[in-house]
Amino acid sequence: MDDQPIITKFTPKKPQGLIVVITGNGKGKTTSAMGMALRGCGHGLKTTIVQFMKGDLYSGEWDGVKMLEPLVKLYHTGKGFCGIEGNPYAHSEHRKNAQEAIQLITRILSADDCDTLILDEINNALQLKLVDLDQVKNIISSRPAHMHLVLTGRDAHPEIIELADTVSEVREIKHAYRKEIEPQPGIDF
Amino acid sequence: MDDQPIITKFTPKKPQGLIVVITGNGKGKTTSAMGMALRGCGHGLKTTIVQFMKGDLYSGEWDGVKMLEPLVKLYHTGKGFCGIEGNPYAHSEHRKNAQEAIQLITRILSADDCDTLILDEINNALQLKLVDLDQVKNIISSRPAHMHLVLTGRDAHPEIIELADTVSEVREIKHAYRKEIEPQPGIDF
Repeated sequence: MDDQPIITKFTPKKPQGLIVVITGNGKGKTTSAMGMALRGCGHGLKTTIVQFMKGDLYSGEWDGVKMLEPLVKLYHTGKGFCGIEGNPYAHSEHRKNAQEAIQLITRILSADDCDTLILDEINNALQLKLVDLDQVKNIISSRPAHMHLVLTGRDAHPEIIELADTVSEVREIKHAYRKEIEPQPGIDF
Repeated sequence: MDDQPIITKFTPKKPQGLIVVITGNGKGKTTSAMGMALRGCGHGLKTTIVQFMKGDLYSGEWDGVKMLEPLVKLYHTGKGFCGIEGNPYAHSEHRKNAQEAIQLITRILSADDCDTLILDEINNALQLKLVDLDQVKNIISSRPAHMHLVLTGRDAHPEIIELADTVSEVREIKHAYRKEIEPQPGIDF
């Protein structure tokens, strides 16, 4: 395009770590968190992603984020299946995985080695009692002040919404699977 | 984590291009589209992103997607400012830019050289009469059957929602800027 405008790069006078919650029943919560990781790269920011309750079904972001190394790191924890039909694992096993993820997060917070920490599906993990409300509140209160925290997943707890700075609810208006269209790679996983 | 489950990679029996609309007034529409581009990379899929009405204010995804080259390409078109206070440009100038973007999209569709085509903020561009409903419907009907089309932006047109397979509405529950917190890089732009 000719006649391009001058590009301004905004710099906040007061940088501060935000608490962002992405909840709701629609498509685009994890996807949105992945977009923040990508966007952060453009600013040279480091993002660490801890995914709860995922691990059985391949999702494109696992290899996608490798293209963003070393700025972005992703850990997927859990066995999958939790809270869905055909779940072959006991609640205690899912909880054990989620508790290991909490320990991992505690180490990440102590090391203070990222600008944005994404806790993918932690809202569901809380709802399903794989982690405790006090554990999530403790993550929020103990994080370094500069660090953004992004918490995704359905059914965000009201106390977490209260603590957050920015909260979006992604609502399903329609979804292809209701027309019996199968999940499509790149779009759905 | 020990005792990892076996990872399954789902392959649809019937691959098909989906029409996805991400609309609403909340944070996470463009971000979600960027996440789909990243996710596609994990499947080796090519994504082209055409951004409408952006161009004056730096956003992290511009450099972020360069790390995903050659799988992802991004074109930002427009002058920014459209529909917001302090807009120094005439409507005709914004429309000229948006019409150039439509020509670019037509060339991309003819060349059939991507798996996912993201039309970022095209819903707003339609609402602001920078593009016409027939033009957007024509893009949808003339795309190759395998190609996913993702249309983002507020105020998605009811006819476009009708044509879509998957539609999410991102609703603002709260936003940091209402507490007079400045936009933060990596999260807000």
